Amino acid sequence: MEKQELLDCHQRIKPFIHRTAVLSSQSINNKLGLNVFFKCENFQRAGAYKMRGATNAILQLSQKERNKGVVTHSSGNFAQAVSLAAKSLNVKAHIVMPTSAPQVKKIGVAAYGGKIYECEPTLRAREENANRLVAELGATLLHPSNDLDVIIGQGTAAIELLEEVPNLNTIFCPVGGGGLIAGSALAAMYFGKDCKVYGGEPFEADDAYRSLQSGKIEGNKSTNTIADGLKTTLGNTNFPIIKEHVNGIIRVTEEEIISAMRLVWERMKIIIEPSSAVTLAALIRDKENFQNQDVGIIISGGNVDLQNLPF
Amino acid sequence: MEKQELLDCHQRIKPFIHRTAVLSSQSINNKLGLNVFFKCENFQRAGAYKMRGATNAILQLSQKERNKGVVTHSSGNFAQAVSLAAKSLNVKAHIVMPTSAPQVKKIGVAAYGGKIYECEPTLRAREENANRLVAELGATLLHPSNDLDVIIGQGTAAIELLEEVPNLNTIFCPVGGGGLIAGSALAAMYFGKDCKVYGGEPFEADDAYRSLQSGKIEGNKSTNTIADGLKTTLGNTNFPIIKEHVNGIIRVTEEEIISAMRLVWERMKIIIEPSSAVTLAALIRDKENFQNQDVGIIISGGNVDLQNLPF
Repeated sequence: MEKQELLDCHQRIKPFIHRTAVLSSQSINNKLGLNVFFKCENFQRAGAYKMRGATNAILQLSQKERNKGVVTHSSGNFAQAVSLAAKSLNVKAHIVMPTSAPQVKKIGVAAYGGKIYECEPTLRAREENANRLVAELGATLLHPSNDLDVIIGQGTAAIELLEEVPNLNTIFCPVGGGGLIAGSALAAMYFGKDCKVYGGEPFEADDAYRSLQSGKIEGNKSTNTIADGLKTTLGNTNFPIIKEHVNGIIRVTEEEIISAMRLVWERMKIIIEPSSAVTLAALIRDKENFQNQDVGIIISGGNVDLQNLPF
Repeated sequence: MEKQELLDCHQRIKPFIHRTAVLSSQSINNKLGLNVFFKCENFQRAGAYKMRGATNAILQLSQKERNKGVVTHSSGNFAQAVSLAAKSLNVKAHIVMPTSAPQVKKIGVAAYGGKIYECEPTLRAREENANRLVAELGATLLHPSNDLDVIIGQGTAAIELLEEVPNLNTIFCPVGGGGLIAGSALAAMYFGKDCKVYGGEPFEADDAYRSLQSGKIEGNKSTNTIADGLKTTLGNTNFPIIKEHVNGIIRVTEEEIISAMRLVWERMKIIIEPSSAVTLAALIRDKENFQNQDVGIIISGGNVDLQNLPF
């Protein structure tokens, strides 16, 4: 992985993504004793950073591959992102979604022209259904987090954040499948100035924390978390990057996630989804270790079911 | 009123306010057939544009006046703004609030150090209580909307919006007491290029619409609206400005307000209060008259009680 590959990716996807705002809150900074810079990927097209990786992955396909369409499985945000990215590039998107995916995300996929195939809410069912579609259609499988083109694409959010705040001491990312934090870690290495990278993860889906402890990819013991985007596990492409470049993963309770989510809604007046609140919750839990630092947080998305809020 | 007075005011208050973001939504633009530029005063300090006028009014007081404190009456956002602006300038703030004011706004006032005096939810009770405090304390009354320093201060949001989007065809403001739309109309006249100004108002509190029809200040026949910031009536300082410079007022139903509020929450991922959704609702209702225009909307605030959402 070369620095130039990240720069090329950023240039490649620029016409298809928003350069999202970086926001701060004086009251949150005062409360924490440090400066937080929120990279607002909830303002990204399709409402999440996943648009970056999805766009990059599709742009890397040949015209022949594009003609046969793309397939993915996702609980929501990557599904919407692939649907919209594919639509922008005139490619057909086939989306395997677990029946448990939030209704608002299914509506989003359908609105962006993605064709939905529902399946049982297990990783195995998702993968089987996706593989079947690949075999039947000759379409290309886009993995939401364990594909190098996707990982690099996701890292462009951190590139932009570091362009605006070059001296960040630390970047926090949520950890689900590992694509965002792997990409962000590469960006921090190439574009930061000794910029550390930490992950936030629910205790209820702490596979990445335990994977870093054991040194091999661990599954989730439970996925009973409100952070519906963080139920997936790491992959063999992103795990080596995470193992080498991520400085630590901080786990948080469900109450801490909801409290951090509410804090952002009330103080910053922006809508973030529970998976995005995990990072601020992690920073709050461990704030003593980051006093007076400049900390970046990738707000991963804002696709919330307004009918089903935790407060 | 001179152009220079608005510029001086903007310079004067700059150290105490945020320069808020201007956001757009491709999907809302496509839906409406025009380009909307949202000036996000929900991101302003204390969560609303009112911080601008409050700061300017207090900065115009002598030190002797500041020592005796300031008094205001407000259903919420101006109360919070005066409390915070006063605190920043080491001035004591006495705030008369109707018992019907949202809990979240009372909490905000208290958090910013304002002293709350509760009263009956009528304009008369509010004014009587405020006048009593002025008499007792020798403090200065700050009117939330009918004070020229306040009006000019509120106009600085439109100045910033026009700095970023100089060729706006139209600016939409919500109309409550009339301070924001009067200030915005002055800003549009001095800094716009033939920029029109329209107001949005609930049918349930349409005093400004009827005042422009009759040519004199009318009261509200009802104030049964979710837009709690728009229940007040115009004043003799702002009405002449509105009469001369505002191009029209568009009334909307409660359903249209809630629908527009939801649209912004879902598509833009920002939290706006019902009073702020009135403008987009008005633009949607009358969109045929603004096709292909560049339209600015002042998003007035984001102080919503999350426990009491209309959807």
